[in-house]
Amino acid sequence: MSTSSLRPLAVADTRASRRTFLKNGALTALAAGAASALGACKPSEPKVAQAAAAPDAAMGHGMTPPAPSAAPAAASMSLAEKRRRADEMDAMHEKGIKAFPAKTAGKGNQPMAPRMDGGVKVFELTATVMKWQTAPDQWVEAWAYNEQVPGPQIRVREGDRVRVVLKNELPQSTALHFHGLELPNGVDGVPFITQPPVKPGESYTYEFVVPNSGSHMYHSHHNAATQVGNGMLGAFIVEPKEPLPIERGVDVDYVMILNDGAHGYTLNGKGFPATEPVVAKLGQKVRIRFMNEGMMIHPMHLHGMHMTVIAKDGWAQPAPWKCDTLNVAPGERWDVIVNCNNPGTWAFHCHILPHAESEHGMFGMVTALVVQGPTKA
Amino acid sequence: MSTSSLRPLAVADTRASRRTFLKNGALTALAAGAASALGACKPSEPKVAQAAAAPDAAMGHGMTPPAPSAAPAAASMSLAEKRRRADEMDAMHEKGIKAFPAKTAGKGNQPMAPRMDGGVKVFELTATVMKWQTAPDQWVEAWAYNEQVPGPQIRVREGDRVRVVLKNELPQSTALHFHGLELPNGVDGVPFITQPPVKPGESYTYEFVVPNSGSHMYHSHHNAATQVGNGMLGAFIVEPKEPLPIERGVDVDYVMILNDGAHGYTLNGKGFPATEPVVAKLGQKVRIRFMNEGMMIHPMHLHGMHMTVIAKDGWAQPAPWKCDTLNVAPGERWDVIVNCNNPGTWAFHCHILPHAESEHGMFGMVTALVVQGPTKA
Amino acid sequence: MSTSSLRPLAVADTRASRRTFLKNGALTALAAGAASALGACKPSEPKVAQAAAAPDAAMGHGMTPPAPSAAPAAASMSLAEKRRRADEMDAMHEKGIKAFPAKTAGKGNQPMAPRMDGGVKVFELTATVMKWQTAPDQWVEAWAYNEQVPGPQIRVREGDRVRVVLKNELPQSTALHFHGLELPNGVDGVPFITQPPVKPGESYTYEFVVPNSGSHMYHSHHNAATQVGNGMLGAFIVEPKEPLPIERGVDVDYVMILNDGAHGYTLNGKGFPATEPVVAKLGQKVRIRFMNEGMMIHPMHLHGMHMTVIAKDGWAQPAPWKCDTLNVAPGERWDVIVNCNNPGTWAFHCHILPHAESEHGMFGMVTALVVQGPTKA
Repeated sequence: MSTSSLRPLAVADTRASRRTFLKNGALTALAAGAASALGACKPSEPKVAQAAAAPDAAMGHGMTPPAPSAAPAAASMSLAEKRRRADEMDAMHEKGIKAFPAKTAGKGNQPMAPRMDGGVKVFELTATVMKWQTAPDQWVEAWAYNEQVPGPQIRVREGDRVRVVLKNELPQSTALHFHGLELPNGVDGVPFITQPPVKPGESYTYEFVVPNSGSHMYHSHHNAATQVGNGMLGAFIVEPKEPLPIERGVDVDYVMILNDGAHGYTLNGKGFPATEPVVAKLGQKVRIRFMNEGMMIHPMHLHGMHMTVIAKDGWAQPAPWKCDTLNVAPGERWDVIVNCNNPGTWAFHCHILPHAESEHGMFGMVTALVVQGPTKA
Repeated sequence: MSTSSLRPLAVADTRASRRTFLKNGALTALAAGAASALGACKPSEPKVAQAAAAPDAAMGHGMTPPAPSAAPAAASMSLAEKRRRADEMDAMHEKGIKAFPAKTAGKGNQPMAPRMDGGVKVFELTATVMKWQTAPDQWVEAWAYNEQVPGPQIRVREGDRVRVVLKNELPQSTALHFHGLELPNGVDGVPFITQPPVKPGESYTYEFVVPNSGSHMYHSHHNAATQVGNGMLGAFIVEPKEPLPIERGVDVDYVMILNDGAHGYTLNGKGFPATEPVVAKLGQKVRIRFMNEGMMIHPMHLHGMHMTVIAKDGWAQPAPWKCDTLNVAPGERWDVIVNCNNPGTWAFHCHILPHAESEHGMFGMVTALVVQGPTKA
Repeated sequence: MSTSSLRPLAVADTRASRRTFLKNGALTALAAGAASALGACKPSEPKVAQAAAAPDAAMGHGMTPPAPSAAPAAASMSLAEKRRRADEMDAMHEKGIKAFPAKTAGKGNQPMAPRMDGGVKVFELTATVMKWQTAPDQWVEAWAYNEQVPGPQIRVREGDRVRVVLKNELPQSTALHFHGLELPNGVDGVPFITQPPVKPGESYTYEFVVPNSGSHMYHSHHNAATQVGNGMLGAFIVEPKEPLPIERGVDVDYVMILNDGAHGYTLNGKGFPATEPVVAKLGQKVRIRFMNEGMMIHPMHLHGMHMTVIAKDGWAQPAPWKCDTLNVAPGERWDVIVNCNNPGTWAFHCHILPHAESEHGMFGMVTALVVQGPTKA
């Protein structure tokens, strides 16, 4: 499937925008793992078939991007003026995309190696208030575990004995809930129901045998609308003793945590262009574990290839099913497989468009799946 | 299933409202394809069993519909005054329903016949700014393909070679993404990733062999929160080479595109009462292809019959399943089958009630499934 | 599954908060059906491992809970001051939880016994405007059936002949729709399509043979955004003639109606701590019928055990599937089974956190599943 013998078209080129388009971009370098996966660089791409040569008129007044409400006036606008305004807007869009993946301070969701204490895997999580960079131009206050947003990725195995030590250096009490794990009630992490709140300056220890496998989460369960919104969350992945056939042979296992609280629209704590691309080689099998720690649904849309849904909240679906847009609601986890059979750089974003793009370009819940390999002709 | 031997009740009639109710309505005419499907006209319907004869008192002050906050005062309101206010509100509700389906200028989502160029099916889409009528009293600015909102319905066959020529007559750049098609990267339509933006006055050509079947969409992928919200979207239906058994024998194949952007709550670009009813005869099989091009979920609820869900995003579900309320998230497409075994005019609406009804009557995401045939006694 | 041999930790105790935590609570009494299910009372629970002895400093100024924006100042705040503020916030949280389940006036969703008229089950529903208490400190105006929010629970059997008599004592017209039942068109309850509106002071009778089983609803279908938001809704449960194997042997059959209109975020018409816990004994099988009568999605999350989804909108799913967070959209009904194999008091709430918790503690869409039985050591 997904094959095409694309016929090149004889067309005129566009001027400056095309040259600019080709000349730079971290994205291009990234995609060039095997060969350039950036479709724009292919000789066989379809091109602009008609390019009116309209010189830009010099305009004396201030430049603002055309808002929808300004469009009626557009009826009487000269083509040159439309172009000038379009170029201005497009430059902002291009700048964002060329910056992707933009470097920012800090990286969340990093795998955390446990300290071993006898047969127990010990994870220490310290909650603090800190500054966190979500995008090149955006710093926010974060309440974070181990100075990461999301907190460090915990990955254990079904049946492991695990100890999680929570240190509270926040100005509020807190508590830790292991969302999706079917633990004994005493370690469920709900203040005044299963434990006292953990006060500022205190520590609290959770210890248990991991009961069920799958894609789970840990997060605050005290004043949680604020604390989780501020960053107190992370992935808790449990490898099964016996993987299902469809889970085997995964080349890339990627956790993608969605959030929409005080830090804006983020994927793993960052907004586009500071989000992290998922990178695979042609023919590889990618597993993506979507987790929503926000307050809104996010229907995640992958371009170019479908996703095969294999699990919900850590439980295998009775039969895998396919989609290209997966609605992920708050608290849900969905596991999907992508068979990377279509080379290129593929947009991958929330399809609630105001979570992904503005007049100033793409932002927020946008990343890319880069499939490195020879592109189709 | 769904049978009932309804026993007529001996009851008094209501006065004016009942006569008004029976006397007119395009809906009645529409439903009367075989026999009247409008239940209100059946002799066997249950009727109002008690109708207090309360003469309307003449009131000197201004008439406003009772808002919820006005209700406490209602405790001391006379029955006559309650009736007078109710009649006033009901008249607005009735007016909307009797107007359905209301005529408006323009119709979107119209099937588009391709021009053949050798073996290639060529579709030309020209994007312009125009005025669009969403309801009898509402005109909006639209950014539209071929002066339709949604744009013309493209319907091709798996394996077809297709060329789509986009002409941009907007005051902004744009680009075309084929949402759900697993195309080569170069025709994916994302500016600065797979192509340059298509500037005002320019054209751009996409050509490909259609790789996968199902209910897909095309829409702008540049400044998309604005451009799609303004109307730059349409259905891209791909007939499969080998239909599934459950897909065969469909009598009515209906595309229903949901939107909630700058044009308000719309079904195929129109708000109630200007929405289009789905019409079938008793015993027919209707396929509905829901597509959400908006920013919100819309749980679509059909009265009187269930929907059997057969596909998600163009991919067959592993097993069909039944529902009467289907949650359609932005970017999703869901295909359902309705076996029209229950005659009548059935409300069909988004069940987020503020998307469908106000104090002034039904509006927005409301239509009807009309099953023409002899009604049950 | 879900077993754990939790090792007690040798730790210091916390001071006042711990004593307060243990000393009271209706929740504790409730959970103590067999043995205390309240994890906090178990001797084997993990405890706070470090408790700094910080005396509270007397502060002269007014006490306000620390808002997130106040946190930067927290960097320079003394530990004593942080503790004092934390204690203050925690006291509010504790107060809410200790009050659960709080008594309020009125209880909705109560099973309604029909009056028999020959072979017909007759249900009379009278709609009035009244005051309704949603939480200890909150009274609202309700538009209610039989002075209950939700209205009385109607439970009949597939094939039953049912008569529902609606009496309208509201200041507006109304009508009754049986959401999910595949009735003849004449009793579908949509004014000006299938019947005249029922005016203030009038009655209207619906009579039918119940055509399809499952978890359904009744609610107003006139000015419904207002009327349903104000409380005009209830459960209409239809027992099947032939239950599926997975439906058999249910010990607790619980209807949970979600709403988010004029009464705030409610479960069966009440907000936490006035919500009703679901109570079962260890080893019992609970069926929960989620119904959303609101305007927003509510992803309901159960701690400690998973839910097995068996039906959607009253129709069996082709294969049951498991989850711990179930997204319930407006108009949807989802039936799940919980096998109560994990003793304790388990938080059960909407995972859109602002629907469940604020700086002042839990509220709104929060309840608990209490599994009574000896807790695990």
